[in-house]
Amino acid sequence: MDDKKNSKEALKPYKKAFDYSYTLGAFPTIELLKAKPEQVREVYVHSTFTDTAVLQELCGKHRIPLRTNDKVIARLSDKENVFVIGVFEKYEETLDASKSQIVLVNPSNMGNMGTILRTAVGFGIYDIAFISPAVDVFNPKVVRSSMGALFRLRHQYFDSYEEYRAANKEQEVFTFMLNAKRQLTVEDCPKPKHFALVFGNEATGLPDSYLDAGTSIIIPQSPDVDSLNLTIAVGVGTFLFTRNM
Amino acid sequence: MDDKKNSKEALKPYKKAFDYSYTLGAFPTIELLKAKPEQVREVYVHSTFTDTAVLQELCGKHRIPLRTNDKVIARLSDKENVFVIGVFEKYEETLDASKSQIVLVNPSNMGNMGTILRTAVGFGIYDIAFISPAVDVFNPKVVRSSMGALFRLRHQYFDSYEEYRAANKEQEVFTFMLNAKRQLTVEDCPKPKHFALVFGNEATGLPDSYLDAGTSIIIPQSPDVDSLNLTIAVGVGTFLFTRNM
Repeated sequence: MDDKKNSKEALKPYKKAFDYSYTLGAFPTIELLKAKPEQVREVYVHSTFTDTAVLQELCGKHRIPLRTNDKVIARLSDKENVFVIGVFEKYEETLDASKSQIVLVNPSNMGNMGTILRTAVGFGIYDIAFISPAVDVFNPKVVRSSMGALFRLRHQYFDSYEEYRAANKEQEVFTFMLNAKRQLTVEDCPKPKHFALVFGNEATGLPDSYLDAGTSIIIPQSPDVDSLNLTIAVGVGTFLFTRNM
Repeated sequence: MDDKKNSKEALKPYKKAFDYSYTLGAFPTIELLKAKPEQVREVYVHSTFTDTAVLQELCGKHRIPLRTNDKVIARLSDKENVFVIGVFEKYEETLDASKSQIVLVNPSNMGNMGTILRTAVGFGIYDIAFISPAVDVFNPKVVRSSMGALFRLRHQYFDSYEEYRAANKEQEVFTFMLNAKRQLTVEDCPKPKHFALVFGNEATGLPDSYLDAGTSIIIPQSPDVDSLNLTIAVGVGTFLFTRNM
Protein backbone atom coordinates (compact mmCIF):
# COMPACT_ATOMS: atom_id res chain seq x y z
CA MET A 1 0.00 0.00 0.00
CA ASP A 2 1.43 3.36 -0.91
CA ASP A 3 0.59 6.84 0.23
CA LYS A 4 -1.71 9.39 -1.24
CA LYS A 5 0.57 10.26 -4.15
CA ASN A 6 -0.93 9.62 -7.61
CA SER A 7 -4.33 10.77 -6.46
CA LYS A 8 -5.22 13.26 -9.17
CA GLU A 9 -7.42 15.44 -7.02
CA ALA A 10 -8.36 15.91 -3.39
CA LEU A 11 -11.38 13.71 -2.77
CA LYS A 12 -14.38 15.54 -1.37
CA PRO A 13 -17.66 14.37 0.13
CA TYR A 14 -19.89 13.08 -2.64
CA LYS A 15 -21.96 15.35 -4.83
CA LYS A 16 -24.32 14.27 -7.57
CA ALA A 17 -22.41 16.28 -10.17
CA PHE A 18 -19.23 14.22 -9.69
CA ASP A 19 -18.38 11.68 -12.40
CA TYR A 20 -17.23 9.32 -9.66
CA SER A 21 -18.63 8.06 -6.37
CA TYR A 22 -17.67 6.00 -3.32
CA THR A 23 -18.37 2.70 -1.68
CA LEU A 24 -18.37 3.22 2.09
CA GLY A 25 -17.44 0.05 3.95
CA ALA A 26 -15.53 -3.14 3.28
CA PHE A 27 -18.48 -5.20 2.10
CA PRO A 28 -19.76 -2.92 -0.70
CA THR A 29 -16.16 -2.19 -1.73
CA ILE A 30 -15.43 -5.89 -2.15
CA GLU A 31 -18.66 -6.28 -4.13
CA LEU A 32 -17.54 -3.41 -6.36
CA LEU A 33 -14.13 -4.99 -6.91
CA LYS A 34 -15.68 -8.34 -7.76
CA ALA A 35 -18.45 -7.14 -10.06
CA LYS A 36 -17.12 -3.94 -11.66
CA PRO A 37 -13.32 -3.87 -11.26
CA GLU A 38 -12.90 -1.85 -14.48
CA GLN A 39 -14.73 1.08 -12.84
CA VAL A 40 -12.50 1.30 -9.76
CA ARG A 41 -9.96 4.13 -9.52
CA GLU A 42 -8.53 3.38 -6.10
CA VAL A 43 -9.33 1.94 -2.70
CA TYR A 44 -8.61 3.51 0.70
CA VAL A 45 -8.27 1.71 4.00
CA HIS A 46 -7.96 3.05 7.52
CA SER A 47 -4.63 2.32 9.25
CA THR A 48 -6.42 0.42 12.01
CA PHE A 49 -8.11 -1.94 9.54
CA THR A 50 -6.15 -5.17 9.32
CA ASP A 51 -8.45 -7.56 7.47
CA THR A 52 -7.07 -6.55 4.06
CA ALA A 53 -6.29 -9.90 2.46
CA VAL A 54 -9.28 -9.94 0.07
CA LEU A 55 -8.81 -6.27 -0.80
CA GLN A 56 -5.10 -6.83 -1.52
CA GLU A 57 -5.84 -9.81 -3.72
CA LEU A 58 -8.59 -8.08 -5.75
CA CYS A 59 -6.73 -4.77 -6.09
CA GLY A 60 -3.53 -6.58 -7.05
CA LYS A 61 -5.30 -8.70 -9.66
CA HIS A 62 -6.82 -5.62 -11.31
CA ARG A 63 -3.85 -3.27 -10.69
CA ILE A 64 -5.95 -0.92 -8.58
CA PRO A 65 -4.10 1.30 -6.07
CA LEU A 66 -4.81 0.35 -2.44
CA ARG A 67 -3.90 3.23 -0.17
CA THR A 68 -3.81 3.73 3.59
CA ASN A 69 -5.08 7.21 4.41
CA ASP A 70 -7.02 7.97 7.58
CA LYS A 71 -7.71 11.57 6.57
CA VAL A 72 -9.44 10.60 3.35
CA ILE A 73 -11.51 8.01 5.20
CA ALA A 74 -12.55 10.55 7.83
CA ARG A 75 -13.41 13.19 5.22
CA LEU A 76 -15.59 10.93 3.06
CA SER A 77 -17.23 8.68 5.60
CA ASP A 78 -20.14 10.92 6.52
CA LYS A 79 -20.28 10.13 10.24
CA GLU A 80 -20.63 6.43 9.59
CA ASN A 81 -18.21 3.91 11.01
CA VAL A 82 -16.19 3.24 7.88
CA PHE A 83 -12.75 1.67 7.44
CA VAL A 84 -12.67 0.99 3.71
CA ILE A 85 -13.67 3.25 0.82
CA GLY A 86 -13.64 2.49 -2.89
CA VAL A 87 -13.51 5.28 -5.48
CA PHE A 88 -15.24 4.33 -8.72
CA GLU A 89 -16.22 5.96 -12.00
CA LYS A 90 -19.93 6.23 -12.58
CA TYR A 91 -21.28 4.41 -15.60
CA GLU A 92 -24.38 4.16 -17.74
CA GLU A 93 -26.13 0.96 -18.65
CA THR A 94 -28.97 -0.29 -20.84
CA LEU A 95 -31.50 -2.74 -19.49
CA ASP A 96 -31.74 -6.17 -21.04
CA ALA A 97 -35.06 -5.83 -22.88
CA SER A 98 -35.54 -9.61 -22.89
CA LYS A 99 -35.58 -9.99 -19.10
CA SER A 100 -38.08 -9.46 -16.30
CA GLN A 101 -37.68 -6.04 -14.74
CA ILE A 102 -38.61 -3.79 -11.83
CA VAL A 103 -39.65 -0.20 -12.51
CA LEU A 104 -39.47 2.42 -9.74
CA VAL A 105 -41.46 5.55 -10.52
CA ASN A 106 -40.05 8.64 -8.77
CA PRO A 107 -38.32 6.89 -5.85
CA SER A 108 -37.34 9.52 -3.30
CA ASN A 109 -35.65 7.74 -0.41
CA MET A 110 -32.03 6.62 -0.75
CA GLY A 111 -32.18 3.92 1.89
CA ASN A 112 -35.28 2.43 0.30
CA MET A 113 -33.69 2.44 -3.14
CA GLY A 114 -30.66 0.57 -1.85
CA THR A 115 -32.82 -1.97 -0.04
CA ILE A 116 -34.87 -2.50 -3.19
CA LEU A 117 -31.75 -3.13 -5.30
CA ARG A 118 -30.51 -5.67 -2.77
CA THR A 119 -33.93 -7.34 -2.70
CA ALA A 120 -34.21 -7.45 -6.50
CA VAL A 121 -30.87 -9.22 -6.85
CA GLY A 122 -31.77 -11.46 -3.92
CA PHE A 123 -34.81 -12.68 -5.85
CA GLY A 124 -33.12 -12.86 -9.23
CA ILE A 125 -34.16 -9.62 -10.95
CA TYR A 126 -31.16 -7.90 -12.55
CA ASP A 127 -32.80 -5.10 -14.56
CA ILE A 128 -34.11 -2.03 -12.74
CA ALA A 129 -35.60 1.08 -14.35
CA PHE A 130 -35.95 4.43 -12.60
CA ILE A 131 -38.47 6.96 -13.90
CA SER A 132 -37.22 10.50 -13.19
CA PRO A 133 -37.36 12.46 -11.01
CA ALA A 134 -35.63 9.83 -8.91
CA VAL A 135 -32.85 9.80 -6.35
CA ASP A 136 -29.27 9.38 -7.48
CA VAL A 137 -28.47 5.66 -7.50
CA PHE A 138 -24.75 6.41 -7.17
CA ASN A 139 -25.12 8.32 -3.94
CA PRO A 140 -22.96 6.45 -1.41
CA LYS A 141 -26.00 6.05 0.86
CA VAL A 142 -27.82 4.11 -1.85
CA VAL A 143 -24.72 2.07 -2.66
CA ARG A 144 -24.25 1.23 0.99
CA SER A 145 -27.83 0.27 1.70
CA SER A 146 -27.76 -1.90 -1.44
CA MET A 147 -24.82 -3.74 0.17
CA GLY A 148 -23.14 -3.47 -3.22
CA ALA A 149 -26.02 -5.15 -5.08
CA LEU A 150 -26.01 -2.09 -7.37
CA PHE A 151 -22.91 -3.53 -9.05
CA ARG A 152 -24.57 -6.87 -9.75
CA LEU A 153 -27.46 -5.50 -11.81
CA ARG A 154 -28.24 -3.22 -14.75
CA HIS A 155 -29.96 0.07 -14.01
CA GLN A 156 -31.25 2.77 -16.34
CA TYR A 157 -32.95 6.13 -15.88
CA PHE A 158 -35.84 7.19 -18.12
CA ASP A 159 -37.51 10.59 -18.38
CA SER A 160 -40.96 9.02 -18.51
CA TYR A 161 -42.72 5.69 -18.26
CA GLU A 162 -43.50 5.93 -21.99
CA GLU A 163 -39.79 6.23 -22.77
CA TYR A 164 -39.10 3.17 -20.64
CA ARG A 165 -41.88 1.22 -22.30
CA ALA A 166 -40.75 2.12 -25.81
CA ALA A 167 -37.44 0.41 -25.10
CA ASN A 168 -38.88 -2.53 -23.15
CA LYS A 169 -41.95 -3.96 -24.84
CA GLU A 170 -41.79 -7.68 -24.15
CA GLN A 171 -42.70 -7.51 -20.48
CA GLU A 172 -46.24 -8.00 -19.23
CA VAL A 173 -46.83 -4.98 -17.00
CA PHE A 174 -48.14 -5.11 -13.41
CA THR A 175 -48.69 -1.89 -11.51
CA PHE A 176 -48.83 -1.97 -7.72
CA MET A 177 -51.59 0.39 -6.59
CA LEU A 178 -53.83 0.79 -3.55
CA ASN A 179 -56.86 1.21 -5.82
CA ALA A 180 -55.95 -1.77 -7.96
CA LYS A 181 -58.48 -3.98 -9.67
CA ARG A 182 -56.91 -7.28 -8.68
CA GLN A 183 -55.54 -8.76 -5.46
CA LEU A 184 -52.17 -10.46 -5.59
CA THR A 185 -52.48 -13.85 -3.93
CA VAL A 186 -50.18 -16.83 -3.76
CA GLU A 187 -52.67 -19.08 -5.55
CA ASP A 188 -53.50 -16.58 -8.20
CA CYS A 189 -50.17 -14.88 -8.96
CA PRO A 190 -49.78 -14.36 -12.73
CA LYS A 191 -46.98 -16.32 -14.40
CA PRO A 192 -45.96 -14.38 -17.50
CA LYS A 193 -42.77 -15.26 -19.34
CA HIS A 194 -41.34 -11.79 -18.73
CA PHE A 195 -42.82 -9.19 -16.41
CA ALA A 196 -42.33 -5.60 -15.38
CA LEU A 197 -43.35 -4.83 -11.79
CA VAL A 198 -44.06 -1.11 -11.46
CA PHE A 199 -44.00 0.66 -8.08
CA GLY A 200 -44.73 4.30 -7.23
CA ASN A 201 -43.22 6.90 -4.96
CA GLU A 202 -43.00 6.23 -1.18
CA ALA A 203 -45.49 8.93 -0.24
CA THR A 204 -47.80 9.20 -3.22
CA GLY A 205 -47.83 5.80 -4.90
CA LEU A 206 -48.61 5.55 -8.61
CA PRO A 207 -50.92 8.11 -10.25
CA ASP A 208 -54.25 6.80 -11.52
CA SER A 209 -52.93 6.96 -15.08
CA TYR A 210 -51.08 3.72 -14.29
CA LEU A 211 -54.36 1.83 -13.76
CA ASP A 212 -54.41 1.16 -17.49
CA ALA A 213 -50.69 0.67 -18.07
CA GLY A 214 -51.10 -3.04 -17.43
CA THR A 215 -52.76 -5.16 -14.75
CA SER A 216 -53.11 -3.17 -11.55
CA ILE A 217 -52.59 -5.29 -8.44
CA ILE A 218 -52.55 -4.88 -4.69
CA ILE A 219 -51.01 -7.03 -1.99
CA PRO A 220 -53.85 -7.85 0.46
CA GLN A 221 -53.37 -5.88 3.68
CA SER A 222 -55.15 -5.16 6.94
CA PRO A 223 -57.37 -2.06 7.19
CA ASP A 224 -55.30 -1.19 10.28
CA VAL A 225 -52.50 0.20 8.10
CA ASP A 226 -52.64 2.93 5.50
CA SER A 227 -50.39 0.96 3.18
CA LEU A 228 -47.38 -1.30 3.19
CA ASN A 229 -43.92 0.25 3.17
CA LEU A 230 -42.62 0.50 -0.41
CA THR A 231 -39.70 -1.84 0.21
CA ILE A 232 -42.03 -4.48 1.67
CA ALA A 233 -44.39 -4.22 -1.31
CA VAL A 234 -41.43 -4.69 -3.67
CA GLY A 235 -40.13 -7.58 -1.58
CA VAL A 236 -43.39 -9.52 -1.41
CA GLY A 237 -44.36 -8.75 -5.01
CA THR A 238 -40.98 -9.73 -6.39
CA PHE A 239 -40.82 -12.88 -4.28
CA LEU A 240 -44.16 -14.07 -5.65
CA PHE A 241 -43.48 -13.23 -9.28
CA THR A 242 -40.00 -14.73 -9.33
CA ARG A 243 -40.75 -18.02 -7.64
CA ASN A 244 -41.53 -19.70 -10.97
CA MET A 245 -38.65 -18.24 -12.93
CA MET B 1 -56.69 25.75 21.06
CA ASP B 2 -55.04 27.39 24.02
CA ASP B 3 -51.46 28.29 24.70
CA LYS B 4 -48.76 26.42 26.51
CA LYS B 5 -50.23 26.96 29.96
CA ASN B 6 -51.14 23.78 31.84
CA SER B 7 -48.13 22.01 30.45
CA LYS B 8 -46.58 20.62 33.60
CA GLU B 9 -43.02 20.72 32.37
CA ALA B 10 -41.01 22.08 29.46
CA LEU B 11 -40.96 19.37 26.83
CA LYS B 12 -37.49 18.31 25.74
CA PRO B 13 -36.19 16.17 22.90
CA TYR B 14 -36.93 12.54 23.63
CA LYS B 15 -34.76 10.44 25.88
CA LYS B 16 -35.26 6.79 26.69
CA ALA B 17 -35.52 7.51 30.42
CA PHE B 18 -38.67 9.64 29.96
CA ASP B 19 -41.98 8.09 30.99
CA TYR B 20 -43.57 9.74 27.95
CA SER B 21 -42.75 10.02 24.25
CA TYR B 22 -43.88 11.79 21.08
CA THR B 23 -45.58 11.09 17.80
CA LEU B 24 -43.94 13.26 15.14
CA GLY B 25 -46.33 14.03 12.28
CA ALA B 26 -50.06 14.21 11.70
CA PHE B 27 -50.50 10.61 10.57
CA PRO B 28 -48.94 8.81 13.57
CA THR B 29 -50.60 11.31 15.93
CA ILE B 30 -54.03 10.53 14.50
CA GLU B 31 -53.28 6.81 14.79
CA LEU B 32 -52.32 7.37 18.43
CA LEU B 33 -55.55 9.28 19.12
CA LYS B 34 -57.65 6.59 17.47
CA ALA B 35 -55.99 3.54 19.01
CA LYS B 36 -54.69 4.71 22.41
CA PRO B 37 -56.51 7.93 23.34
CA GLU B 38 -56.20 7.16 27.07
CA GLN B 39 -52.41 7.49 26.80
CA VAL B 40 -52.38 10.96 25.23
CA ARG B 41 -51.41 13.95 27.39
CA GLU B 42 -51.65 16.68 24.78
CA VAL B 43 -51.26 17.43 21.10
CA TYR B 44 -49.30 20.30 19.53
CA VAL B 45 -49.82 21.78 16.08
CA HIS B 46 -47.79 24.33 14.17
CA SER B 47 -49.53 27.64 13.51
CA THR B 48 -49.21 27.13 9.73
CA PHE B 49 -50.98 23.77 9.87
CA THR B 50 -54.63 24.20 8.93
CA ASP B 51 -55.90 20.68 8.35
CA THR B 52 -56.94 20.24 11.99
CA ALA B 53 -60.50 18.96 11.69
CA VAL B 54 -59.73 15.34 12.56
CA LEU B 55 -57.38 16.36 15.37
CA GLN B 56 -60.00 18.70 16.83
CA GLU B 57 -62.66 16.03 16.71
CA LEU B 58 -60.51 13.33 18.32
CA CYS B 59 -59.01 15.61 20.96
CA GLY B 60 -62.43 17.06 21.76
CA LYS B 61 -64.00 13.63 22.10
CA HIS B 62 -61.33 12.48 24.55
CA ARG B 63 -60.83 15.87 26.28
CA ILE B 64 -57.20 16.08 25.24
CA PRO B 65 -55.61 19.56 25.06
CA LEU B 66 -54.82 20.65 21.49
CA ARG B 67 -52.26 23.46 21.55
CA THR B 68 -50.70 25.68 18.92
CA ASN B 69 -47.03 26.21 19.74
CA ASP B 70 -44.38 26.61 17.06
CA LYS B 71 -41.51 26.62 19.55
CA VAL B 72 -42.42 23.24 20.99
CA ILE B 73 -42.78 21.81 17.49
CA ALA B 74 -39.38 23.17 16.47
CA ARG B 75 -37.70 21.90 19.64
CA LEU B 76 -39.03 18.36 19.41
CA SER B 77 -39.12 17.71 15.70
CA ASP B 78 -35.51 16.61 15.28
CA LYS B 79 -34.87 18.25 11.88
CA GLU B 80 -37.82 16.50 10.30
CA ASN B 81 -40.60 18.38 8.60
CA VAL B 82 -43.19 18.09 11.34
CA PHE B 83 -46.39 20.09 11.93
CA VAL B 84 -48.17 17.93 14.51
CA ILE B 85 -46.80 16.30 17.65
CA GLY B 86 -48.62 14.10 20.15
CA VAL B 87 -47.33 13.68 23.72
CA PHE B 88 -48.21 10.28 25.17
CA GLU B 89 -47.50 8.26 28.30
CA LYS B 90 -45.53 5.11 27.69
CA TYR B 91 -47.23 1.87 28.62
CA GLU B 92 -46.47 -1.80 29.15
CA GLU B 93 -48.39 -4.64 27.56
CA THR B 94 -48.56 -8.41 27.69
CA LEU B 95 -48.72 -10.44 24.51
CA ASP B 96 -51.80 -12.50 23.80
CA ALA B 97 -50.39 -16.00 24.34
CA SER B 98 -53.11 -17.52 22.17
CA LYS B 99 -52.17 -15.65 18.99
CA SER B 100 -49.52 -15.97 16.30
CA GLN B 101 -46.53 -13.76 17.04
CA ILE B 102 -43.34 -12.25 15.68
CA VAL B 103 -40.19 -12.33 17.81
CA LEU B 104 -37.34 -9.92 17.12
CA VAL B 105 -34.07 -10.94 18.77
CA ASN B 106 -31.81 -7.95 19.50
CA PRO B 107 -33.17 -5.56 16.84
CA SER B 108 -30.76 -2.63 16.59
CA ASN B 109 -32.13 -0.28 13.92
CA MET B 110 -35.00 2.04 14.76
CA GLY B 111 -36.21 2.52 11.20
CA ASN B 112 -36.27 -1.22 10.64
CA MET B 113 -38.20 -1.81 13.85
CA GLY B 114 -40.85 0.69 12.81
CA THR B 115 -41.14 -0.81 9.34
CA ILE B 116 -41.49 -4.28 10.86
CA LEU B 117 -44.31 -3.15 13.17
CA ARG B 118 -46.15 -1.59 10.22
CA THR B 119 -45.64 -4.75 8.17
CA ALA B 120 -46.81 -7.03 10.98
CA VAL B 121 -50.07 -5.14 11.38
CA GLY B 122 -50.41 -4.96 7.60
CA PHE B 123 -50.39 -8.76 7.46
CA GLY B 124 -52.52 -9.29 10.56
CA ILE B 125 -49.97 -10.05 13.31
CA TYR B 126 -50.72 -8.03 16.45
CA ASP B 127 -48.30 -9.53 18.98
CA ILE B 128 -44.61 -8.66 18.78
CA ALA B 129 -41.90 -9.75 21.24
CA PHE B 130 -38.51 -8.06 21.56
CA ILE B 131 -35.62 -9.97 23.11
CA SER B 132 -33.26 -7.54 24.87
CA PRO B 133 -30.93 -5.88 24.17
CA ALA B 134 -33.24 -4.19 21.69
CA VAL B 135 -33.88 -0.63 20.57
CA ASP B 136 -36.48 1.45 22.39
CA VAL B 137 -39.83 0.93 20.66
CA PHE B 138 -41.10 4.26 22.03
CA ASN B 139 -38.32 6.28 20.39
CA PRO B 140 -40.12 8.77 18.11
CA LYS B 141 -38.10 7.47 15.15
CA VAL B 142 -39.56 4.00 15.64
CA VAL B 143 -43.06 5.38 16.17
CA ARG B 144 -42.80 7.46 13.03
CA SER B 145 -41.43 4.73 10.79
CA SER B 146 -44.18 2.44 12.10
CA MET B 147 -46.66 5.04 10.81
CA GLY B 148 -48.43 4.64 14.13
CA ALA B 149 -48.84 0.86 13.77
CA LEU B 150 -47.19 0.58 17.20
CA PHE B 151 -50.49 1.68 18.73
CA ARG B 152 -52.47 -1.04 16.93
CA LEU B 153 -50.53 -3.99 18.35
CA ARG B 154 -49.28 -5.49 21.60
CA HIS B 155 -45.56 -5.43 22.25
CA GLN B 156 -43.51 -6.87 25.09
CA TYR B 157 -39.82 -6.95 26.00
CA PHE B 158 -38.19 -10.10 27.37
CA ASP B 159 -34.72 -10.53 28.85
CA SER B 160 -34.21 -13.79 26.98
CA TYR B 161 -35.81 -16.07 24.45
CA GLU B 162 -36.40 -18.57 27.23
CA GLU B 163 -38.37 -16.00 29.20
CA TYR B 164 -40.46 -15.24 26.10
CA ARG B 165 -41.08 -18.91 25.47
CA ALA B 166 -42.09 -19.64 29.05
CA ALA B 167 -44.95 -17.17 28.66
CA ASN B 168 -45.88 -18.15 25.09
CA LYS B 169 -45.93 -21.90 24.66
CA GLU B 170 -48.72 -22.53 22.17
CA GLN B 171 -46.93 -21.25 19.11
CA GLU B 172 -45.05 -23.51 16.73
CA VAL B 173 -41.64 -21.85 16.41
CA PHE B 174 -39.89 -21.01 13.13
CA THR B 175 -36.44 -19.42 13.21
CA PHE B 176 -35.23 -17.53 10.14
CA MET B 177 -31.54 -18.38 9.63
CA LEU B 178 -29.08 -18.40 6.75
CA ASN B 179 -27.89 -21.87 7.77
CA ALA B 180 -31.42 -23.20 8.14
CA LYS B 181 -32.37 -26.80 7.47
CA ARG B 182 -35.47 -26.03 5.44
CA GLN B 183 -36.30 -23.67 2.56
CA LEU B 184 -39.45 -21.61 2.85
CA THR B 185 -41.43 -21.98 -0.37
CA VAL B 186 -44.92 -20.99 -1.37
CA GLU B 187 -45.95 -24.59 -1.98
CA ASP B 188 -44.41 -25.90 1.18
CA CYS B 189 -45.08 -23.18 3.74
CA PRO B 190 -46.09 -24.73 7.07
CA LYS B 191 -49.64 -24.02 8.24
CA PRO B 192 -49.64 -24.29 12.03
CA LYS B 193 -52.60 -23.05 14.03
CA HIS B 194 -50.42 -20.53 15.88
CA PHE B 195 -46.85 -19.67 14.98
CA ALA B 196 -43.97 -17.61 16.27
CA LEU B 197 -41.66 -16.28 13.56
CA VAL B 198 -38.25 -15.52 15.07
CA PHE B 199 -35.80 -13.12 13.41
CA GLY B 200 -32.28 -12.11 14.47
CA ASN B 201 -30.29 -8.92 14.56
CA GLU B 202 -29.72 -6.95 11.34
CA ALA B 203 -25.98 -7.58 11.23
CA THR B 204 -25.51 -10.90 12.97
CA GLY B 205 -28.73 -12.88 12.44
CA LEU B 206 -29.70 -15.54 14.95
CA PRO B 207 -27.01 -17.46 16.86
CA ASP B 208 -26.70 -21.17 16.05
CA SER B 209 -28.41 -22.00 19.34
CA TYR B 210 -31.68 -21.10 17.60
CA LEU B 211 -31.27 -23.97 15.11
CA ASP B 212 -32.98 -26.21 17.65
CA ALA B 213 -35.52 -23.74 19.03
CA GLY B 214 -38.02 -24.86 16.41
CA THR B 215 -37.94 -25.37 12.66
CA SER B 216 -35.14 -23.31 11.10
CA ILE B 217 -36.09 -21.90 7.70
CA ILE B 218 -34.56 -19.73 5.00
CA ILE B 219 -36.20 -17.73 2.25
CA PRO B 220 -34.55 -18.88 -1.01
CA GLN B 221 -32.21 -16.18 -2.30
CA SER B 222 -29.66 -15.61 -5.04
CA PRO B 223 -25.97 -16.28 -4.30
CA ASP B 224 -25.37 -12.73 -5.57
CA VAL B 225 -26.46 -11.28 -2.21
CA ASP B 226 -25.08 -11.97 1.22
CA SER B 227 -28.57 -12.03 2.71
CA LEU B 228 -31.93 -10.34 2.47
CA ASN B 229 -32.53 -7.15 4.44
CA LEU B 230 -34.17 -7.97 7.79
CA THR B 231 -37.35 -6.05 6.99
CA ILE B 232 -37.72 -7.92 3.68
CA ALA B 233 -37.25 -11.28 5.37
CA VAL B 234 -39.92 -10.36 7.92
CA GLY B 235 -42.21 -9.10 5.16
CA VAL B 236 -41.99 -12.16 2.94
CA GLY B 237 -42.01 -14.62 5.84
CA THR B 238 -45.02 -13.00 7.49
CA PHE B 239 -46.90 -12.70 4.20
CA LEU B 240 -46.53 -16.43 3.55
CA PHE B 241 -47.38 -17.59 7.06
CA THR B 242 -50.41 -15.32 7.40
CA ARG B 243 -52.09 -16.01 4.08
CA ASN B 244 -54.05 -18.92 5.52
CA MET B 245 -55.04 -17.27 8.78
